[in-house]
Formats: sequence, structure tokens, C-alpha cells
Amino acid sequence: MSAPAEAAELAAAILEGRPRALPRGLTWIESGGDRAEALVEILYPHTRAAHVVGVTGASGAGKSTLVTALAKEARKRGIRVAILAVDPSSPYTGGAILGDRIRMRELSGDPGVFIRSMATRGALGGLARAAADGVDLLCAAGFPLVIVETVGVGQDEVDIMRLAHSTIVVSVPGMGDDIQALKAGIMEIADIHVVNKADRDGAERTINELRAILAMQMVPEGGWEIPVIPTVATKGEGASKLLDQLDAHFAHLKKTGELETRLRRIAEARVAKLAQELVADAIRHPLQGANDPILADLTRVARRELSPHRCARTVLGRTTASLTDGSH
Amino acid sequence: MSAPAEAAELAAAILEGRPRALPRGLTWIESGGDRAEALVEILYPHTRAAHVVGVTGASGAGKSTLVTALAKEARKRGIRVAILAVDPSSPYTGGAILGDRIRMRELSGDPGVFIRSMATRGALGGLARAAADGVDLLCAAGFPLVIVETVGVGQDEVDIMRLAHSTIVVSVPGMGDDIQALKAGIMEIADIHVVNKADRDGAERTINELRAILAMQMVPEGGWEIPVIPTVATKGEGASKLLDQLDAHFAHLKKTGELETRLRRIAEARVAKLAQELVADAIRHPLQGANDPILADLTRVARRELSPHRCARTVLGRTTASLTDGSH
Repeated sequence: MSAPAEAAELAAAILEGRPRALPRGLTWIESGGDRAEALVEILYPHTRAAHVVGVTGASGAGKSTLVTALAKEARKRGIRVAILAVDPSSPYTGGAILGDRIRMRELSGDPGVFIRSMATRGALGGLARAAADGVDLLCAAGFPLVIVETVGVGQDEVDIMRLAHSTIVVSVPGMGDDIQALKAGIMEIADIHVVNKADRDGAERTINELRAILAMQMVPEGGWEIPVIPTVATKGEGASKLLDQLDAHFAHLKKTGELETRLRRIAEARVAKLAQELVADAIRHPLQGANDPILADLTRVARRELSPHRCARTVLGRTTASLTDGSH
Repeated sequence: MSAPAEAAELAAAILEGRPRALPRGLTWIESGGDRAEALVEILYPHTRAAHVVGVTGASGAGKSTLVTALAKEARKRGIRVAILAVDPSSPYTGGAILGDRIRMRELSGDPGVFIRSMATRGALGGLARAAADGVDLLCAAGFPLVIVETVGVGQDEVDIMRLAHSTIVVSVPGMGDDIQALKAGIMEIADIHVVNKADRDGAERTINELRAILAMQMVPEGGWEIPVIPTVATKGEGASKLLDQLDAHFAHLKKTGELETRLRRIAEARVAKLAQELVADAIRHPLQGANDPILADLTRVARRELSPHRCARTVLGRTTASLTDGSH
């Protein structure tokens, strides 16, 4: 079967909710390339309805356990949940990372829950690309709640969090320096703060610190006031309140028109990244091998015969030409 | 005067080594835009001769003091030195950051030394772009030794270090976890390791640890064996040996043809970054304002009418078209 025909068949199976279609599609996505792109192309128009929630925070904050608690709470309310755990630091892929196995045990046997891990290895074209495409598949498969969980606080994680409609940043009591990192890096992407392990010493202080930081930010009239929610994820405490707040945030986004703005911003970031990846690809893997005109240009730059700025424009032109040739 | 004519005049003044031309050129570079690009365009063919040395490492390692010691040693040998201190975390620009003021006092009055700081604010088009263009100016101004110093170990720093022919990574005794970060992030870019503050307790251990890590790496026949050099920068100790090793490394690069490879890799990374920046710019600041076809495409992506992958290709085409229009 041709690649497009194969993609069309798999896409249909995913839209119908056939059990083995989704894992297979996600494996395609991880491998990247034309097949993955063809799949997303077909499914993309069907990705509109879901609420995409991002969960991030320093490692050790109990994100996996929190996501499990959140999924259980959603199931109590009859909501189907898909979880995509993205770990840029982990070499494992196509299956389960540690936190996942524990989770799978707790949530297993429930066809209303789908869990998948994605890691750097195998995610050709970058993990952020694969995560975005993966979320599309989960949305198209009809899950009304799609949770994307990342480990760590680097640029990759921030890029991945940019896919979400609502972002939860998880802290724990007594993080010390980590809260500094949070302040600098991911504070600004939080729609909801969770202080997990809230039964520990110092929880009150961490909660108050976060609230104090948030109090310094001006919230415009009718804007979203970022809540700080204490949870004890291992016992499920706070999960119900967290899910309520997620619903409230999604409703707020819809009511204020902010959802359109976010969807636009998501589209912008994603398209920019993909276009940049196409350019980087054309430079790294020139289509015509050693005779590629891009390579010849780069040699001229190295020899000081062509300026890098001028070459950048030429490379863009050549990349575009090769794309419209249909040779890529 | 027209922008190109102004750029030509300033470029000529820089090439002649007129004292006030270089600082002015670097201010242009920081501001970015057409004027900066025109300046680099003229000067780029004159950037070949210098040895560009990168110095990086965790903050507190004494990089500024080490660079000062290295500059003094170079001056003893009659070599003119330019220093570009790049600080992605600092908001100050166009002048001096703290380490610089101290340095300037020590090296001031010597017309054979040029020092300049560059920070994030004001460096339009990205700090890595500004740093690369700045290095071009320093090379074109005829300094045979150009030292680029960065603070921190993030992606920006790694990008900036990619500009260098030879890279020095500075550690200090008892860095503990920091050495882990070094291992993960910037170990692979080091051509020379310096353990500064080598009169401190634990220096021997840090040196041995580094040597043990390096000993595990295979060096091909005739390849460069990465040295670990102890220094006490405050007293100038080790600076002479470090400069010898820098000379040896540059000679090695030339002899083995590795220099051509590096220059090509530098060109590649720089062009890729510039081309990607052009794409990002076209998305962020569409030329035709609200009616820009790129904006219309992005809205269609947000509405699920156009897939992000297809849009990325369209955006590349539109960016290229707008560049060849001469409207950018």
C-alpha cells in the first residue's frame, strides 16, 4: 500500500477509536517523516474539541502521581483521559518509563484511559514536534481531556508546554533553589499552580511564597486569577479541586475569547518551529548530497567569499525551491 | 548619508583601526537590522586571520580574571587582544558589566587591548547573532587574538562557543554538582580545560577527575589531546602555559586541516541560525501587517483548516518571496 493510503487507513481507524490504532499511530509519529506528516494532515481537522492540559515542574515534585490522581478523578466524572508523558532526558521510548509502569498498574484495565510515553531517542525531527503531533492524534481519537506531562524545566519542556490550553506548574515544599528556577523559567507559563506533597513541613510557606509572587502581578479586570492548589497526590487529595479549576480555566478561555488567542499562539510557535526545522534539515541533510548548492554556499561562507547573512537568505530560497519541487 | 554609504564609511574606519570606529560598530551590531548587516557584509571578507578563542564555564570559576591574565600574557608577547564578554543573563549592554570594570582598570591605557561587553537587552535578533557579528568586527579590526567569554552553561552559551576556533572550559576545585553539569553540557566543546583557583584545597582531585574523564575518550592517531591546565588567574600563574597551549591548538587545527572543518561547521551553525531567525521574524513581524498572508495562514492553522506542517512549507515560501522582493 502507498504511504498516503496507509496513512488514510490508520487515520480512519484512530477516528473510529479502534484500540490498536492509536499506539501504532504514535509509533509512526515518533519515527517522523512523510508517513507521520500524512497522518497528522488527515487527523488535524478533527483535533478541535479536546482540552489539552500541560503539567510540568522540577523532577521529584510528584508530577506522575499527580497526573494519575487527576486521571482517576476525571474517570469518576465519566471523562475519558489520554496522557502523554514526555521525557527529554530519558532514552526509553515507544513504551513505558518508570513512572508510567506504576501508573499503568493503577489505571490499567480502564479503556477510558490511554497512557503513552515519548522520549528523545526515536523522536526524529525533535521531541517538541513529536509531542505536538502526538497530542493531535490523542485529540483526534476523541479524548476530551489530553494531559501532556514533561520532566524538567529546559527549553524543550517550555516548547512542549506551549502546546497546552491550560498549564499546571507543580512545586513541592522546601524546594529552595528550585523555586528560583521556577521563577525564572516557567512561572510565566502557569495557569494553575499546584503545591504537591502539601502534608509535608514547609508546605504553608511554599504556598504563601507562590501566592506572594502571584499577588505582585497585575491581573486585568475579568482576567484569570492564577490559583495555588495544595495537593497530596498519593492520597488523591486536592485532585477534585484541581479538576474543577481546570474546567474553570477552560471555560474562562472560551468565554473571554482567550482560547482563540492561545490557539493562534500555539499555531504560530508550532509552525515557526516546523519551518525552522525544515531549514535546519536542508542544511544538515542536503537533498543532492555532496553536490547540493547549499553545501557549496556554506563552503563559500567558511572561505569568507559569502557573508553568513546573505547565505541565510540564499539557503531559505533553496530550501523553499526544494520543497516545491516535491523532492522532499 | 544612506545606510550602505554610512556602513561603508564605518567599515573603512574599522579596517584602518581608527580608535572610535570599533565601539561604534559594535553598537550598530547590538542594535541589529539592515545597518548591522551591511557592516558585516563589507567586513566579512577581512575576518580570516584571527584566532578566535572561546572561554566558558560555570559562574564563579574566575573566567574574567583568567581572561585578564591571558590578555596580559599575550601583551607581554606583543600580541594585540580583543575581548568580547557576552552575558546572556545580564541586562546591561553597550558598556561594562562588573567583571569588565575591574579588568578595564588592569588593562586600561594599553591601545593593544580592546574590551567590550554584550548582553541580552539591545541585542536584537538574538545574542548569538550579535556575538557572531561582533567577533567579525574584532577580527576585521586586525586583532590576531579575539577572546569571547560567556557566563553560564545554557544553550545560548553553547551557541556562542560554537563561534570559536579553540574553546577553553574553566572549572574550579570542589565544584561538586557543577562538574556534572559540565560533563553533560559543555564537556564536548572543550579543546582545553583549565582548573582555575588551583591553589585551593581539592584542586588536585578536580584535575585528576577531569583527566580521568578525558582518558576515557579515544583520541585518534595524530588527534588533539585535550590538556588540563591548572591556573591561579589572580596571580597570573599558568597563563603562559595556557597561551602556549592555545597556540599549539591553533597550529594543530591548521596542520591537520581541522581548521577548515571547524570554519565550515561555524558557517553552517551560523547560517542555520540566521535563516531560522528570518523565518521566525517573518512570523512574528509580518511585513504587510494585519493583511500579511502568513498571518492568514496561521489563523487557518488555529482553526484547523490548514495543518501546521503544510503551513510551515507555505511560510518558508512566503518568507523567501518577501526577501527576494527586496522589501525586507
